Amino acid sequence: MASPEPVERPAATCLTAARRPDDIIKIMLATDNHIGYLERDPVRGQDAMDTFEEILKLAVKYDVDFILLAGDLFHENRPSREVLFRTMALLREHTLSDKPVQVELLSNPDDGKADGFSFPAINYEDPNLNVGIPVFSIHGNHDDPQGAGHEGALCALDLLSVAGLINYIGKIDLASDQKDPNSDSGGIKVKPVLLQKGNTRLALYGMGNIKDQRMHYELRTNRVRIVKHGPQEYVPEGMFDDSINLVVWGHEHDCRIEPEEVPGKPYFITQPGSSVATSLSDGESIPKQVAFLEIQGKEFQMTPIPLRTVRPFVMEELILSEEAEEHGFSLTDKMEINKFLRSRRENVGEEDEEDDTAPPKEMLPLVRLKVDTTGVPEMSNPIRFGQEFQGRVANPKDLLVFTRQKKSAQKAVKIDKPELSIDDPDLSTQNKLARVRFAQLVEEYLGAQELQLLGENGMGDAIQMYVDKDDSTAIKEYVSA
Amino acid sequence: MASPEPVERPAATCLTAARRPDDIIKIMLATDNHIGYLERDPVRGQDAMDTFEEILKLAVKYDVDFILLAGDLFHENRPSREVLFRTMALLREHTLSDKPVQVELLSNPDDGKADGFSFPAINYEDPNLNVGIPVFSIHGNHDDPQGAGHEGALCALDLLSVAGLINYIGKIDLASDQKDPNSDSGGIKVKPVLLQKGNTRLALYGMGNIKDQRMHYELRTNRVRIVKHGPQEYVPEGMFDDSINLVVWGHEHDCRIEPEEVPGKPYFITQPGSSVATSLSDGESIPKQVAFLEIQGKEFQMTPIPLRTVRPFVMEELILSEEAEEHGFSLTDKMEINKFLRSRRENVGEEDEEDDTAPPKEMLPLVRLKVDTTGVPEMSNPIRFGQEFQGRVANPKDLLVFTRQKKSAQKAVKIDKPELSIDDPDLSTQNKLARVRFAQLVEEYLGAQELQLLGENGMGDAIQMYVDKDDSTAIKEYVSA
Repeated sequence: MASPEPVERPAATCLTAARRPDDIIKIMLATDNHIGYLERDPVRGQDAMDTFEEILKLAVKYDVDFILLAGDLFHENRPSREVLFRTMALLREHTLSDKPVQVELLSNPDDGKADGFSFPAINYEDPNLNVGIPVFSIHGNHDDPQGAGHEGALCALDLLSVAGLINYIGKIDLASDQKDPNSDSGGIKVKPVLLQKGNTRLALYGMGNIKDQRMHYELRTNRVRIVKHGPQEYVPEGMFDDSINLVVWGHEHDCRIEPEEVPGKPYFITQPGSSVATSLSDGESIPKQVAFLEIQGKEFQMTPIPLRTVRPFVMEELILSEEAEEHGFSLTDKMEINKFLRSRRENVGEEDEEDDTAPPKEMLPLVRLKVDTTGVPEMSNPIRFGQEFQGRVANPKDLLVFTRQKKSAQKAVKIDKPELSIDDPDLSTQNKLARVRFAQLVEEYLGAQELQLLGENGMGDAIQMYVDKDDSTAIKEYVSA
Repeated sequence: MASPEPVERPAATCLTAARRPDDIIKIMLATDNHIGYLERDPVRGQDAMDTFEEILKLAVKYDVDFILLAGDLFHENRPSREVLFRTMALLREHTLSDKPVQVELLSNPDDGKADGFSFPAINYEDPNLNVGIPVFSIHGNHDDPQGAGHEGALCALDLLSVAGLINYIGKIDLASDQKDPNSDSGGIKVKPVLLQKGNTRLALYGMGNIKDQRMHYELRTNRVRIVKHGPQEYVPEGMFDDSINLVVWGHEHDCRIEPEEVPGKPYFITQPGSSVATSLSDGESIPKQVAFLEIQGKEFQMTPIPLRTVRPFVMEELILSEEAEEHGFSLTDKMEINKFLRSRRENVGEEDEEDDTAPPKEMLPLVRLKVDTTGVPEMSNPIRFGQEFQGRVANPKDLLVFTRQKKSAQKAVKIDKPELSIDDPDLSTQNKLARVRFAQLVEEYLGAQELQLLGENGMGDAIQMYVDKDDSTAIKEYVSA
């Protein structure tokens, strides 16, 4: 298929030079597919899987050189047998083929291979497999390596990888680390996958969630303390050194896929966001997209692609006391309140009806009606309220939620916290101090490390960010062209 | 590698005709690998895995056309991530290659394929995979399909199958069955895999454990009752019709791999036995073997191959009162008894020292000392006794077991019951009656079924056997040349 028309953009995110198809690395970019989310839900059970399949089909349609996933492919750390089975089947169906892979691997295909086995870590380098579209993925915080079996800590991606269905990158090399903590070869290794197509070269730095790894540091240095999660915000954008061109963030579910410039820095950041809503928060109601990324020489261009299989999600917030005043009903009259809420629910989402990119009508929408009940003496049962909409919304059980204004504005934010969030705005002074000391430790520790791309300070900052923010920012991919 | 020298055998189990290599189907036959058994045990944790690898290597060494496994590849129904990972890695390492597969598939490669996907059920028919040695396997009672997800009941073998690493045969087709219990297409389907090499044709009938299937029958017909397991014995050998040449039994762990003639019938039975001991019973102490099976025309020849990685296992039984009399110690003197037992333990297995097929000396042996303590007032703690042998035997915790003679000889058998056994010699009259009625039901039910190889009576008998014996005989493979 022909590449889409270029769109007007800041220079560095457009291919300004003449297109030389043989030099253009084409990537399908997606993340946080959360396959298996609510898999037992009779309505929503296949949502994440269906959208993952859509993404694979888009990759075929756009004839990409590879697919890049930035973590949380699976929602559960130990996906069910059904989820693993179907994910493997989808990958085999859509990514194995006799289509020649045009990106040449320049780095060692054995980097990260299974210990004691001869097959390579990169599936398309295995002469026994016909890989048409390689998939590269890091793990997220949901599907990170756990346990300490004979093979070391493994994650669900390891199963896909050993089956030759994905290329699992950005795993933490605990092995060399554990053998000798003082060895120069220990610590965090960020080794790139080096790819070339025509005259375009790409260094792909994957970095999965490192919570466990940090725990190891802390255990080893007798600095084990419970580090609370930091406030939810994006990582300062100056933490990467100048050789980075594009940073792909995983973990955060809001779609901010259009590359954003970083003031004073030559690189851009894109946050594709999840391909399925795992909470009914504002951020998740932003339309879900993946991106078709083209790289030619030092330029890249990103074309967002709206996903068609995503269940529609509309939300509305209202303050009941204000509505009562405006519409003239009493805050003590439960029946009147219910009648009003019912009318509001009926209207929610109506304006989307004409949108021709909307999913098929038979797909029940997710609806969240968030009602501030401050000043209302008694409310009906929200679950019973939702039952009236059974068969008309996908989430009758949590359609309606009540909130009450808290004394502190900061605490009120918690109400909005998505289910997925592992962040916590509350943090004690003691913990903050602990983190400061830990940052110094990391700085010293990293002095001796092999850090091929990021400078020592950059990595020190990065580690500090992990400590400050726990997992919320630890999941990312660096793309350096 | 050249085929091994023929061994003298009853005519029908030898290739008497001149060898025509292009017509000889070569099979590595093994079963009940129980990968994952005791995987957390620091000494024995990798035993089952190591022996499975040995079997794969033997298959490569003997240049077989395929590997045939008769169930219980995995010990746990939900094998750990580590076990799945390593099993997949071993299969990928040893069975994928560019060696051409010389057995042509005559039956439909899509029989049993994943619903809604295009890749075939038989891995070497997938043009995207280079399969050198196909593996065919049924499930056992340990790794049978469970759950009822979007994909129907799945088992661990489905994961290996969807990854293209094994060919899972003999699964129960519940789907068509559940849709319409009165439909002719329902019931048990035993569809063969049809293979040809040169002038030799082979029909491979796989039949996995069907406990769940039986439960469905019973539920549907309101005849749900707890059917106790029947007494442990081999299935009557007359239950197969005349088109069967060789029956491969799984489930039973004793190695009886030399084909046994069935009086009045033209077929043979082989029971390879497990490749790892999962109980310390008499049967498990028989040396573990797999078989190299050659089929040419209507003849076959089986060459047992002792496994080298199997942990040595020696057991001894003694009656303490007799020993006390012979060696002149008192049954009330705990120290004397311990001293005697210690001396007996030291001797157990010594006679194997000179056996040059024995595994490496550094492999700690399994030892079971079974002591009849009838008449002895008080015994020491057998676990404490075993601790003395820590580092010298693989199973210090259950080295020593005490038994006492029961009033009924039948009950005494229970002492010997292997851990794996799902059989129970006790069965109430009520349950026996229930089984009789159920057998009639099955006979009627099967009248309408599609049964391509076994006659209706044969299958009726077979089902009756399942009912009588629960799982102990439900796992088998039919090989019909």
